[in-house]
Amino acid sequence: MKIIIVGGVAGGMSAATRLRRLKEDAEIIIFEKGPFVSFANCGLPYYVSGEIAEREDLLVQTPESLKARFRLDVRPFHEVTVISPDQHIVTVRHDGKEFTESYDKLILSPGAKPFVPPIEGLETAENTYTLRNVPDLDEIMLALEKQPKEAVVIGAGFIGLEMAENLRKRGLNVTIVEKAPHVLPPLDEEMAAFVQAELLKNGIQVVTSQSATRFEDKGKVIVLENGQKIASDVTILSVGVQPENALAQVAGIELGLRGGILVNERYETSQPDIYAVGDAIVVKQEVTGEDALISLASPANRQGRQVADVIAGVARKNKGSIGTAIVRAFDMTAASTGLSERILRMNGLPYQVIHVSGKDHAGYYPGATDVTLKLLFEPTSGKIYGAQGVGKKGVDKRIDILATAIKGNLTIFDLPELEFTYAPPFGSAKDPVNMLGYAALNLVEGLSDNIQWYELEDELAAGKKFLDVRTASELQQGRLKVDTVHIPLNELRERLGELDKSQDYIVSCHSGLRSYIAERILKQAGFSVQNLDGAFALYKMVKPEGVEYGN
Amino acid sequence: MKIIIVGGVAGGMSAATRLRRLKEDAEIIIFEKGPFVSFANCGLPYYVSGEIAEREDLLVQTPESLKARFRLDVRPFHEVTVISPDQHIVTVRHDGKEFTESYDKLILSPGAKPFVPPIEGLETAENTYTLRNVPDLDEIMLALEKQPKEAVVIGAGFIGLEMAENLRKRGLNVTIVEKAPHVLPPLDEEMAAFVQAELLKNGIQVVTSQSATRFEDKGKVIVLENGQKIASDVTILSVGVQPENALAQVAGIELGLRGGILVNERYETSQPDIYAVGDAIVVKQEVTGEDALISLASPANRQGRQVADVIAGVARKNKGSIGTAIVRAFDMTAASTGLSERILRMNGLPYQVIHVSGKDHAGYYPGATDVTLKLLFEPTSGKIYGAQGVGKKGVDKRIDILATAIKGNLTIFDLPELEFTYAPPFGSAKDPVNMLGYAALNLVEGLSDNIQWYELEDELAAGKKFLDVRTASELQQGRLKVDTVHIPLNELRERLGELDKSQDYIVSCHSGLRSYIAERILKQAGFSVQNLDGAFALYKMVKPEGVEYGN
Repeated sequence: MKIIIVGGVAGGMSAATRLRRLKEDAEIIIFEKGPFVSFANCGLPYYVSGEIAEREDLLVQTPESLKARFRLDVRPFHEVTVISPDQHIVTVRHDGKEFTESYDKLILSPGAKPFVPPIEGLETAENTYTLRNVPDLDEIMLALEKQPKEAVVIGAGFIGLEMAENLRKRGLNVTIVEKAPHVLPPLDEEMAAFVQAELLKNGIQVVTSQSATRFEDKGKVIVLENGQKIASDVTILSVGVQPENALAQVAGIELGLRGGILVNERYETSQPDIYAVGDAIVVKQEVTGEDALISLASPANRQGRQVADVIAGVARKNKGSIGTAIVRAFDMTAASTGLSERILRMNGLPYQVIHVSGKDHAGYYPGATDVTLKLLFEPTSGKIYGAQGVGKKGVDKRIDILATAIKGNLTIFDLPELEFTYAPPFGSAKDPVNMLGYAALNLVEGLSDNIQWYELEDELAAGKKFLDVRTASELQQGRLKVDTVHIPLNELRERLGELDKSQDYIVSCHSGLRSYIAERILKQAGFSVQNLDGAFALYKMVKPEGVEYGN
Repeated sequence: MKIIIVGGVAGGMSAATRLRRLKEDAEIIIFEKGPFVSFANCGLPYYVSGEIAEREDLLVQTPESLKARFRLDVRPFHEVTVISPDQHIVTVRHDGKEFTESYDKLILSPGAKPFVPPIEGLETAENTYTLRNVPDLDEIMLALEKQPKEAVVIGAGFIGLEMAENLRKRGLNVTIVEKAPHVLPPLDEEMAAFVQAELLKNGIQVVTSQSATRFEDKGKVIVLENGQKIASDVTILSVGVQPENALAQVAGIELGLRGGILVNERYETSQPDIYAVGDAIVVKQEVTGEDALISLASPANRQGRQVADVIAGVARKNKGSIGTAIVRAFDMTAASTGLSERILRMNGLPYQVIHVSGKDHAGYYPGATDVTLKLLFEPTSGKIYGAQGVGKKGVDKRIDILATAIKGNLTIFDLPELEFTYAPPFGSAKDPVNMLGYAALNLVEGLSDNIQWYELEDELAAGKKFLDVRTASELQQGRLKVDTVHIPLNELRERLGELDKSQDYIVSCHSGLRSYIAERILKQAGFSVQNLDGAFALYKMVKPEGVEYGN
């Protein structure tokens, strides 16, 4: 059997090596239009600051090493320009010449390419870059050798944030411009706010709800929608990616959502003997069952391996992806899995939200730091839609656990049952993930009602009263700019008489632990009360303008 | 309703606080025979070295704080001596006097106490200590003030190892004596070997397959089974724990496995209105469905909360525990969840084993360290029985994920599907947990056969041949003392003629990655071959005497 693979990174190379392990006798040719295969694309931003110091560390495999170990025929600088499905032939351009090669099976793994928005003046700009591969990185490094001072990153997604951090660490002044109302649009606003604060703390300028409308002076000046002009010596365009579908289109392969290649569960495209994997294909978002484009290394690698199994006759099917991602921004980590609240709202799905703030390990053991988690779930079945986390440490662990729970169809009712490793340096007897489960159960079972940070203003306007149960000294460290009744939790039982049973209350403390206790006391005493989910700590982060300090 | 809780740590205090949140009007009395409630029992060993510097950090709650916030009547130094189930009365001893107290519901949370083996001379020994609570710790700290030089820890379980480490960090010479053939008996030998090596590296003497038979000279000399005498200034007895069941026994409550208190799914004992939770109760080991004693903080806390729900009329039942634990030994972490191979063998359950060695995060990003994982599963259904992990970093995360998988009834077929957070500082596109799944699938689907380290000798004696596919230079860094055919993987295809098709082979490399590729090449070429699971790296760790170095 002769197999041609188009694209030698992630999905393509996983397919190639797995195929070899399954079929010693197959002829396997990998055409890669770029100079490198199997490079560490997720590592590229870290080379900018020197955190990954050696360029060759990014080049995980070479055609030679792959030939020696896997007897693969890996051909970089070979661009497949045409696929002729009827004849089972591809046309390949190399070194200025074209030739054809036949195949029995063809695997497309073209990946996704940076989306370049149609900004006025872009064609004359001389300092704009995208980052997809090593040649892109080389260009950026060349530009950085000229000791530029001002960098602008357009797009504050995962790659944008990584580039911003690494450019800053290299000593540049960095401005991030994001069209969405907050950085890190895959996460919800209040969670992304932690990252935004960390960026600001590290001297990065953050401009949100703005996009670049025009490049002037060969790109040295970027004009935003509001007219603001930003000077730039180096501009990184990272506004998103789109499926690299040109070749598939020419081959008459059916495309779907936003130009993604359509495949069935066996990775078969609409053309016989042509398969596709990786960032270019439309997958099923497992949580909703709907079509999605999910550009992540983990699913791409799995798909590559699975398509090899399919071709070799081992039963396998693509179950879909949930989308789990993480980014480090200086000392802060932010991660998410499944659906965000924004997506749930867009899809009109019924959901409830809970935020929990805990420690990455036992609070009594040195070095414990805050982990803030958000859980989104279906109010009746308890099905977990998605989760997000922010914190200095331990966020990856919690989101990985929750991603496992989602993949395994666990519900909120299972979360309290999970038994994690606990010793003081590693965790707590009640992990924040368990606490998410307990808090969600309290909602579903009617022990607690909550409102979200963005609902507070309207609820107060509608006549509810804000009850702060923190201590007096905590109030000095910041309080909401709203009409507040203040009764410390430990005095609440004695001072119930100060409250009015005909009044609806919203109770809050610092992180939500005490306000829940207060809520229970009040509910049992016959009061109508709701809990401000995430409490003061979360509100302060996402709405700093709504907080006042001092006496 | 009047509720009495016996025991004010973990399970007991979780029950008390949850009960208050559910029943503002309940009278809740907690009798604790010791001076403290709700202390950080898992943190005690770290106070020995000063890693936890402040004693008060261990005292998480006080009777005063619990009264103020939860209106709990917490009474330390109150020992319940008798329960009279018929009258619903307990007899309490306090300050030399006895009194009675009636109850509607009684929750027993007495915990487990250190098992003290009947060693000759123990009664005259003046320097032996167990560690269960703060007074125990205070006694040990007093002994340490006398600047002792030699410490002996008898029992190398979790607490034993923590005490050994912290005594060593305090500057003492430490010897660990363990009756089992290896330290950390809850883990299997080859995994525990990593910890043993770390202990030795840090100057701790490790004596295994030995127990103390006699104390001489007021405990200053410890005599082992083999006659060896060890000098000791301070001896810690940490050979295990047993249910604190005296009170239950007196109350006529039915006991089960090794004296554990029997409860139903609603935590009801055999006596009406008496409930029990925590380390003292018999639970269902969820993996096998059999009775077990699992002394861990996480289940105890959950049980405490659940029994409060039951008493308050919220539907809840105890589903059992799987047992997830972790220990840090200097720079090494070891963790486990579910069943070990030893337990599976004892129970006669059919199982397969796979070891995978990966990195805690992307290898191309600085600071990546090895994570070695072991997975035990049912060969047909793929049901996961248990997992173990060792490494410097990231072990907690992987075992927590696998514990979640076990609790969620995921199988090996689900592990490749799991989508984890991946950015270079946090993970890899194919996480070691995914790799466990792939490797297990390869076994189950017949692509690979493996043998375990302890089977190698017999297999070779039976006529199989050892094939090492590492490079020549790797051989110089150590090789097995067995008759070996050496063909580097990258030369294997060309040198197949050197091998004999009538011969059975066992193939090995450094960590198992290359030997699997070699296995696939050989199998497809018609050879009979098995893979040494874990390969040289694992074998060297558990059988260092079977390895030779140099030319």
